[in-house]
Amino acid sequence: MKSSDDPTVGGAKSSEDPPAASPRASDGVRGHRSSAASEASEQRTGPRISIEAFRALELRVGTIRAAEPHPNADRLLVLRVDLGSEERQIVAGIRAHYDAAALVGRQVVVVANLEPARLRGVESQGMVLAATDSERDRVVLLHPDEPVPPGGVVR
Amino acid sequence: MKSSDDPTVGGAKSSEDPPAASPRASDGVRGHRSSAASEASEQRTGPRISIEAFRALELRVGTIRAAEPHPNADRLLVLRVDLGSEERQIVAGIRAHYDAAALVGRQVVVVANLEPARLRGVESQGMVLAATDSERDRVVLLHPDEPVPPGGVVR
Repeated sequence: MKSSDDPTVGGAKSSEDPPAASPRASDGVRGHRSSAASEASEQRTGPRISIEAFRALELRVGTIRAAEPHPNADRLLVLRVDLGSEERQIVAGIRAHYDAAALVGRQVVVVANLEPARLRGVESQGMVLAATDSERDRVVLLHPDEPVPPGGVVR
Repeated sequence: MKSSDDPTVGGAKSSEDPPAASPRASDGVRGHRSSAASEASEQRTGPRISIEAFRALELRVGTIRAAEPHPNADRLLVLRVDLGSEERQIVAGIRAHYDAAALVGRQVVVVANLEPARLRGVESQGMVLAATDSERDRVVLLHPDEPVPPGGVVR
């Protein structure tokens, strides 16, 4: 497994302050995983969380209105995401997996209440959720079965 | 807007101890929303969360292996969800929106480290994520763009 499938997308942590050593931290992508191989078989040993902890998270459906390459990071895209009541700029580590132009109009799932962070000099106002396909070295965005109005709550 | 589109799916809270008053609490579905109408325009006033708080949540892709009606709740389905290394029983409030048989083989996104809970007498070992389409009174499951191996990490 290569390390190039780092699934971390978006960001709410300064790239100057990576939470853990990672080959990808230098790309401004948070280094909170070791490798796809270890992750596929990973058994979490951390504590279970309460439903209250889950509810502290604000997940919403957003519609991508624009997507362009990050000016300073080969692996990142800068998205404009419509959340209904507002539009967010979100930096996502999916440039190796998605064509920017093809993303426009797509719906994604956004962590909408993360603290903003600068990733390689570009502010990210949230995070886009994606799944890891470690077998194929892919990062795969999530979307709702059917389009929903932007801002729709996910829970 | 009807209250019948309660999007809460799965569960990790006892139905005997609903966290908030709700018309749906009696169905064993957590009553943590007011109405679809208020939700669509909702502006969260709660605090932003850190990336660490987000990371405390374990989100994984799962494949539904079986789905059947909850024996004691008209709005709930009981799912068997393959997370790769294990299979989970998850109670989901999607019975009004999805045909049980048609769910088998589908991929969903699971909150995999929630405290287990009994919902109307059936244990739920996690929660399935779904989006709310309040305009059409629908609850819409999430899935990855492409199938990924069960257990794939979402972040």
